[in-house]
Amino acid sequence: MTPQSAAPNAPRLTEKELLEKEKKYCSWGDTVHYLEPPKFFERCEGSNLYDREGVEFLDLQMWYSAASFGYKNERLGNALKAQVDKLPQLACQYLHSEKVELAEKIGKSMERLFGEEGRVHFNVGGAQAVEDSLKLVRQHTKKNLQFAFMGGYHGRTLGASAITSSYRYRRRFGHFGDRAHFVPFPYCYRCPYDKKPDDCGMHCVKQFEKLFETEYNGVLDVKTNESEYGAFYVESIQGTGGYVIPPKDYFKELKKVLDRHKILLVDDEIQMGFHRAGKLWGLANFGVTPDILVFGKALTNGLNPLSGIWAKEKLINPTVFPAGSTHSTFSSNTLGTALGLEVMKICEETDFETMVFEKGKKFLDRLKSLQKKYPKVIGDTDGLGLALRMEIVGADGYTPDRELCDRIFAEGMKGDLDLGGGKKGGMVLDVGGYYKNVFTIAPNFFITEKEMDLAVDLFDQLIRRTTKDRAR
Amino acid sequence: MTPQSAAPNAPRLTEKELLEKEKKYCSWGDTVHYLEPPKFFERCEGSNLYDREGVEFLDLQMWYSAASFGYKNERLGNALKAQVDKLPQLACQYLHSEKVELAEKIGKSMERLFGEEGRVHFNVGGAQAVEDSLKLVRQHTKKNLQFAFMGGYHGRTLGASAITSSYRYRRRFGHFGDRAHFVPFPYCYRCPYDKKPDDCGMHCVKQFEKLFETEYNGVLDVKTNESEYGAFYVESIQGTGGYVIPPKDYFKELKKVLDRHKILLVDDEIQMGFHRAGKLWGLANFGVTPDILVFGKALTNGLNPLSGIWAKEKLINPTVFPAGSTHSTFSSNTLGTALGLEVMKICEETDFETMVFEKGKKFLDRLKSLQKKYPKVIGDTDGLGLALRMEIVGADGYTPDRELCDRIFAEGMKGDLDLGGGKKGGMVLDVGGYYKNVFTIAPNFFITEKEMDLAVDLFDQLIRRTTKDRAR
Amino acid sequence: MTPQSAAPNAPRLTEKELLEKEKKYCSWGDTVHYLEPPKFFERCEGSNLYDREGVEFLDLQMWYSAASFGYKNERLGNALKAQVDKLPQLACQYLHSEKVELAEKIGKSMERLFGEEGRVHFNVGGAQAVEDSLKLVRQHTKKNLQFAFMGGYHGRTLGASAITSSYRYRRRFGHFGDRAHFVPFPYCYRCPYDKKPDDCGMHCVKQFEKLFETEYNGVLDVKTNESEYGAFYVESIQGTGGYVIPPKDYFKELKKVLDRHKILLVDDEIQMGFHRAGKLWGLANFGVTPDILVFGKALTNGLNPLSGIWAKEKLINPTVFPAGSTHSTFSSNTLGTALGLEVMKICEETDFETMVFEKGKKFLDRLKSLQKKYPKVIGDTDGLGLALRMEIVGADGYTPDRELCDRIFAEGMKGDLDLGGGKKGGMVLDVGGYYKNVFTIAPNFFITEKEMDLAVDLFDQLIRRTTKDRAR
Amino acid sequence: MTPQSAAPNAPRLTEKELLEKEKKYCSWGDTVHYLEPPKFFERCEGSNLYDREGVEFLDLQMWYSAASFGYKNERLGNALKAQVDKLPQLACQYLHSEKVELAEKIGKSMERLFGEEGRVHFNVGGAQAVEDSLKLVRQHTKKNLQFAFMGGYHGRTLGASAITSSYRYRRRFGHFGDRAHFVPFPYCYRCPYDKKPDDCGMHCVKQFEKLFETEYNGVLDVKTNESEYGAFYVESIQGTGGYVIPPKDYFKELKKVLDRHKILLVDDEIQMGFHRAGKLWGLANFGVTPDILVFGKALTNGLNPLSGIWAKEKLINPTVFPAGSTHSTFSSNTLGTALGLEVMKICEETDFETMVFEKGKKFLDRLKSLQKKYPKVIGDTDGLGLALRMEIVGADGYTPDRELCDRIFAEGMKGDLDLGGGKKGGMVLDVGGYYKNVFTIAPNFFITEKEMDLAVDLFDQLIRRTTKDRAR
Repeated sequence: MTPQSAAPNAPRLTEKELLEKEKKYCSWGDTVHYLEPPKFFERCEGSNLYDREGVEFLDLQMWYSAASFGYKNERLGNALKAQVDKLPQLACQYLHSEKVELAEKIGKSMERLFGEEGRVHFNVGGAQAVEDSLKLVRQHTKKNLQFAFMGGYHGRTLGASAITSSYRYRRRFGHFGDRAHFVPFPYCYRCPYDKKPDDCGMHCVKQFEKLFETEYNGVLDVKTNESEYGAFYVESIQGTGGYVIPPKDYFKELKKVLDRHKILLVDDEIQMGFHRAGKLWGLANFGVTPDILVFGKALTNGLNPLSGIWAKEKLINPTVFPAGSTHSTFSSNTLGTALGLEVMKICEETDFETMVFEKGKKFLDRLKSLQKKYPKVIGDTDGLGLALRMEIVGADGYTPDRELCDRIFAEGMKGDLDLGGGKKGGMVLDVGGYYKNVFTIAPNFFITEKEMDLAVDLFDQLIRRTTKDRAR
Repeated sequence: MTPQSAAPNAPRLTEKELLEKEKKYCSWGDTVHYLEPPKFFERCEGSNLYDREGVEFLDLQMWYSAASFGYKNERLGNALKAQVDKLPQLACQYLHSEKVELAEKIGKSMERLFGEEGRVHFNVGGAQAVEDSLKLVRQHTKKNLQFAFMGGYHGRTLGASAITSSYRYRRRFGHFGDRAHFVPFPYCYRCPYDKKPDDCGMHCVKQFEKLFETEYNGVLDVKTNESEYGAFYVESIQGTGGYVIPPKDYFKELKKVLDRHKILLVDDEIQMGFHRAGKLWGLANFGVTPDILVFGKALTNGLNPLSGIWAKEKLINPTVFPAGSTHSTFSSNTLGTALGLEVMKICEETDFETMVFEKGKKFLDRLKSLQKKYPKVIGDTDGLGLALRMEIVGADGYTPDRELCDRIFAEGMKGDLDLGGGKKGGMVLDVGGYYKNVFTIAPNFFITEKEMDLAVDLFDQLIRRTTKDRAR
Repeated sequence: MTPQSAAPNAPRLTEKELLEKEKKYCSWGDTVHYLEPPKFFERCEGSNLYDREGVEFLDLQMWYSAASFGYKNERLGNALKAQVDKLPQLACQYLHSEKVELAEKIGKSMERLFGEEGRVHFNVGGAQAVEDSLKLVRQHTKKNLQFAFMGGYHGRTLGASAITSSYRYRRRFGHFGDRAHFVPFPYCYRCPYDKKPDDCGMHCVKQFEKLFETEYNGVLDVKTNESEYGAFYVESIQGTGGYVIPPKDYFKELKKVLDRHKILLVDDEIQMGFHRAGKLWGLANFGVTPDILVFGKALTNGLNPLSGIWAKEKLINPTVFPAGSTHSTFSSNTLGTALGLEVMKICEETDFETMVFEKGKKFLDRLKSLQKKYPKVIGDTDGLGLALRMEIVGADGYTPDRELCDRIFAEGMKGDLDLGGGKKGGMVLDVGGYYKNVFTIAPNFFITEKEMDLAVDLFDQLIRRTTKDRAR
Repeated sequence: MTPQSAAPNAPRLTEKELLEKEKKYCSWGDTVHYLEPPKFFERCEGSNLYDREGVEFLDLQMWYSAASFGYKNERLGNALKAQVDKLPQLACQYLHSEKVELAEKIGKSMERLFGEEGRVHFNVGGAQAVEDSLKLVRQHTKKNLQFAFMGGYHGRTLGASAITSSYRYRRRFGHFGDRAHFVPFPYCYRCPYDKKPDDCGMHCVKQFEKLFETEYNGVLDVKTNESEYGAFYVESIQGTGGYVIPPKDYFKELKKVLDRHKILLVDDEIQMGFHRAGKLWGLANFGVTPDILVFGKALTNGLNPLSGIWAKEKLINPTVFPAGSTHSTFSSNTLGTALGLEVMKICEETDFETMVFEKGKKFLDRLKSLQKKYPKVIGDTDGLGLALRMEIVGADGYTPDRELCDRIFAEGMKGDLDLGGGKKGGMVLDVGGYYKNVFTIAPNFFITEKEMDLAVDLFDQLIRRTTKDRAR
């Protein structure tokens, strides 16, 4: 009934042909382009991508943390294939066991880590999960307005763009009536208040606290202790913002202010979730419990766009958030939940927390050595788990050097670095940060020490190639 | 490196156990619940779903048209598996051939059907593609406000909810500053203006046209011919609205008004696209060309949430909509594009247009016979291609009977109908329509005549079971 | 202490000098300009304006009904002067007797006419009173969105512009997130549904009612009977819209729909209040009670911009709307309340209802005779009380003829018409209506029969001057 | 024709009767109530108010600066009466000489003080003038969003409330889609950044400047230097915020940042305009030129709510802001413009700048002596011209003591203070400030030294009455 075989395969198109078609038929607006023309890849495995000529690239970004468990992870591939052969499709108004089991595993993780009961709600794509969280917040607080961080990123739907700091994401798209109030993030290396972490006394939290001091500061009706803002959206470690790690007690102090004025805390773990920062959820490193937690990306190791939120029972129980409150065709699609369930099983069977902290420490040590070697190129290195950062700076050791950062990135994409053993290859990096001068390094969790050594060696090659006079 | 085998499988959970977990850990708000408790399914194939006891259900909704090419379509399953083994993950800022080839095929389909050049832009989930279209509209027209149809459905993100008619989708979620102006759809069986299609002279378009007659009608600055509304969002055949089919010339007349005032036409083909209504795109049945077309669902036969938009070159070329205009981690994920490409190949190799129109005619003939048999139960049957509708009404043959519709649906889910040959089974239906009294019938494109006969026989059984005194 | 005398008066400026200064220092955007250059006036009295050369103009618009009680009404002038000498200034947080007495008189008028208790809340300028009413509506209904009429006018603040139909008033000023949904007004002479009043069965109300039929019509959550719209803003007789008078039972039928869905009725009496349409409040002609009533203009006969709202006790009592809910420096300024109080006293002492209905009938009779004489120029005449309308049309007797209307208006301003007795003079008219082809005639309540005769004679002169071939 | 005499006057109502009527018929929401019940006044003259028993109250707030030129100023009263007898009413689409002459005088004042050409646009009520300015800003910048100060006050229409800091003014009235971003004002006595003015290096401006440093700070698209905010709304000296006077160079530094990013400066002079702070416009003390200036209140010495804006020619010339751009019935009402013109003449004839600075210095010296006497009661005194402030604090000399401030105010209203010469009387004060602990002192410009002495003596009496243990 179904045609079982395709027409004989057309001859493989050349890259030039593909680029011509891309130039004619593809929107360029659906993602960023850091290279012109963009690079094609054809295969992937473990920590590596391979281009159409078979050249190997060591990858230090793992699809912005979506493929944390390694490219082409065999176990997860098999889980996907098994569901393809069992129940590949089902309208989400009907149930299938994997959905329920996955929800339970996530729910139990929250009970274990935060001691809170709640429920899990699925969707596809991180931004749609953020939109679901906005619905919960708007319903519960009766407020359209949210706090969020400068440097924060929560997606690019209209609703998510309103709480994502960059005005560039909104500028061309009309008025945003629900635009968030953006609060400086504790980016201590470049403190927004020009303080030093040692003696600032958490000045940034105090500045935030001041907003609530009188009605004339604009956000609180002091008479009723009612805030104009429903929730504070946070990434525990800023992703696109440059893997910025806040002081250990920051969120504890911030949460006190939020609690005082009944403002919800929404924790966006789309990039840091699933052990990127050591613990299952990044915020668990900071001693506070979110009211809502948003996850995606590595939930399926990138094999399905499944995303979701967990929310406290009081916010999401069926009395307040009944069936039909929202909907998405693919919300708990069977392939995605089967993958998510397998990822959660892997997480139960493997002590990723220990493993990621250990590997992270080793990687960071190597980066710090590199920084010592190139103080006029690398201004800051930091990391929590395998969320690592390296800030490229000017010869003064501090001023952001975006242009150099771009050149290092582009050089890595050429594929002619020395991989050792006579092999030529490249390195795939990701650039982020307020000044676009930060390498946000998110390696495969199964990266080997040898690969770490290689990574640092490749950085060394790249720095030498791109800077002449900055070696000390 | 990756653990290759999971722990020995835990014993299979009972349905009761699963339901308890679902009750504790799952949000009920992420989809609709028509049954209490919802039904579990475990396998699917062709036109059938199978529950945990192996009972067979004939499916007439195919995941709301997401699985139009049949459950567990082997060729598409193989395409997915092949990509799992080749390039299952890749950050979308890098290119892979399947993305480009799929964009080209969709672009060329637009050139062929509408004679228009444009580009394709991917995302995941229909609502996110709708959000992308809103960005294009808001940028091009400098307008936040849109027209859309009463009965229209475009998704449940905040932005999509603003242009989706049902106020229930907005009520609990605060103020929507970009709420659309909703225009009556030409639902001729229940004409919103109480006209008859034979002699109404397309009264509904004339009413819409009147909005532009003077500045005091509220939407046009007559002096500058500038409209307050940027685009009109349409489904050529309303999906959730009850598979309502407009008069043949409706869109042609509507488009004249839109063109006169430079209002864009955005065609949401998420449910009707990929031949559901015979032609590749539903709107191609009606002789007008959209400015933007949104697609999703059957693009991958439901195996990946890939979605996207096509837009005219002037709206989306890189000069006006450059790289970085928007972004989504999974936008053109490799598994989705490989599936989309295979679906487009199948569509090229098979004359679905002819096949779907023929099957649709046969199915509709059977439904019309049934209507003749039960005029006090079935008020209207209609269809275009394999988008079919059957309206359940009261004994007067016209008043919507939602309660009976619900009972027929629920009875079908019991799984104890006579499938013939001594086999017991059920039928999975979908309910839609303004009054929730319409079966929106979207069968597998490969449905056999025998299955059609069975479907009608099962309807007959269901009507007899649920109505006593209405057989004539 | 205060300098008691000014410098010796500067010589009187010529009109040319004034126009040059106006061209340099005056914004033209603060009102309409129908004449280029605009005309200067220097004195007024009774029904007449006088220009700088002393030429007399019969006025048929009385400052759009602000000066209904006659220009330079001596009694009111004396009341103003008396307050200037007693308490010309006082911060509104302190009380003065006139405020209280005026509020009482208005409150009692509502008890008498509508049988409802409520309170009066002052402000200055009609639009600010409308803004106050919006606050009450938004607080009580928790809804930002309102219904209002096509052709309706409620002022030009941003909030009032959002509920005023003309898009021209919004176009250049960004996005209006609270834009009303505009409903066709029962403008039966040009029925928006092309019906005839005799047998339409109040089709327009039925169309409005349909909005509430299913959730898919976009404005009602049928499950909770909660509407997306808080209130319906109406003018009982449209002012700027062209003095359009609805069918007698229209508002009764409309109110039933509103009551069913708990939608408030806000009655804007800024132009029709204080007996313009015979009864104290225009809506009192139509048998329904408003939830909020807005007034202004003739409250002080134009001698002070005092305005205000009356609202039902449940909406405005101090428990729900306490001190400090809003504020305006001049809200109940002493000069305005003294004038308002004197106007209310005059209204108590004079049977304006009878007087205005009688004079209105006489004036309308004269206009109808004129219409009979010029059927190719005058398409419709109508009136309620002294709110009269005359629609200028093309030779077909129906098509709006804005250009002719403008010419008649301009000709009247020339000041060279024959006033009788050898005197030359002019006539001041106001143009309104959806097509800007309606003379909205609002004479001084003390207009004499002789002045009415003169008015019609002047119209006759104007028509003869401006049309050659349309006399029949 | 007009009834010339009213019915014989009803007997004068008692205060008790009036209060009962007020309780039944008056909204309490249209202004603040600091006293319960509010106090009635019946006459005013010079610097004094008189209650219904004839008790004299020295007034130090002059209707929040609306009656700066003295209560019942005879020359202005005569100007009003003269216009009542000449042209008391005229539709604003027609011109009268006083409008033009007043616009010229204001326009020329701007040329003189700031060297800028522009135009004047009238309206009534300060908030409506603010709304007009918002229209200019929204049109010119294509931006709905504005910056404004914490502690700033610009009125209470919905649009003005969106840029006025206090959330209490918005809380009950739904979502405000155009809510401003509020920036800390340089309130150095209680520096929002805990800095000291001597060595802060204008830290507050630097913090504001940081917002524009990267796109991730949320307000600037660095690539296009386009800001998300159209204008910055300022009061040069905060009115309701507590007569807070910024450092001399503050606005110069702020303006540099605004100019760099093409953000307009809108100067709200409603309270400080017309010499309250010495110069004709408050901002003229600070060396920067506004793009738009808003005025009201003292323009007519409170005898008419006339208000208006002046804007630079490029923002308001008829090409960009033509006739009909906005409208208000009373916009340039003849009584208001006659009064405004007379006020401007008085300002030309009197050197108020010198006079107000001198009297202000004398008054402030007296307040500072009082502060020295009561350091545990008075925390700060400051002033510019006759805009003076006195901050009531706790025994620590710094903590705001709102409760004491309220008691002093209430005690002053009792009318039993010793006025000297055996006369008993009271003092009318106004309370403002972020913590509601500031007396904002705005005396009559013609206040005598004797009255100043009396004022300070009355303060002394009030402090002694309300504090027992805080005299040192």
